[in-house]
Amino acid sequence: MITIRHYDDITPIPVDADGAKNARKRLLVGAADGVPYFSIRMFTIGPGGNTPSHAHDFEHEIYILEGTAKCVSGSTETPVRAGSVIFVPGGEPHCFVNTGSGDLVVLCMVPKEYE
Amino acid sequence: MITIRHYDDITPIPVDADGAKNARKRLLVGAADGVPYFSIRMFTIGPGGNTPSHAHDFEHEIYILEGTAKCVSGSTETPVRAGSVIFVPGGEPHCFVNTGSGDLVVLCMVPKEYE
Repeated sequence: MITIRHYDDITPIPVDADGAKNARKRLLVGAADGVPYFSIRMFTIGPGGNTPSHAHDFEHEIYILEGTAKCVSGSTETPVRAGSVIFVPGGEPHCFVNTGSGDLVVLCMVPKEYE
Repeated sequence: MITIRHYDDITPIPVDADGAKNARKRLLVGAADGVPYFSIRMFTIGPGGNTPSHAHDFEHEIYILEGTAKCVSGSTETPVRAGSVIFVPGGEPHCFVNTGSGDLVVLCMVPKEYE
């Protein structure tokens, strides 16, 4: 069966990971839907907010839907904006900092075990 | 190494699959970047266009970026719009038809072997 929903139908929850600031998460599709491998999450990071700075064994594949940000990995900072795509392989430190005056909205796909 | 690019930097190519109409494709990130499992493609389907109607063993996970469409699976037609997310499990017939007056733009994630 094909699963269809809209992000507006999903209530966001605060991201409570250490170091996260003004960040909310929606799980758009994932393990409960029977996905074979990867889940799609949407993160909304308010002005002045950021995702946690961390590294882990699994990959992130990210698409920026709205806003501007910097992708921070160690001492490297790269500006990104709506329409940017980012592949973070396992093991790479990473953090996204909202650099704009509005929300930063991103899709972040990960293996379902880590959704 | 983290890979960062923008969809505007990627030249779209026509989709030449049987039954595709007025559809172009950009491979945003994939096997050549070393992704472990899944690739991200962007499809732009012009007014009056559609993706091919087909079924295959692997999954699609789709997010609608712009426009309106109907998701056709057998005799079932479901309207979708910007912000809709669709999980098409392996084996399900599916096709997306642009129902709007502008472009339909979607992200479609698949296993890298089928990018």
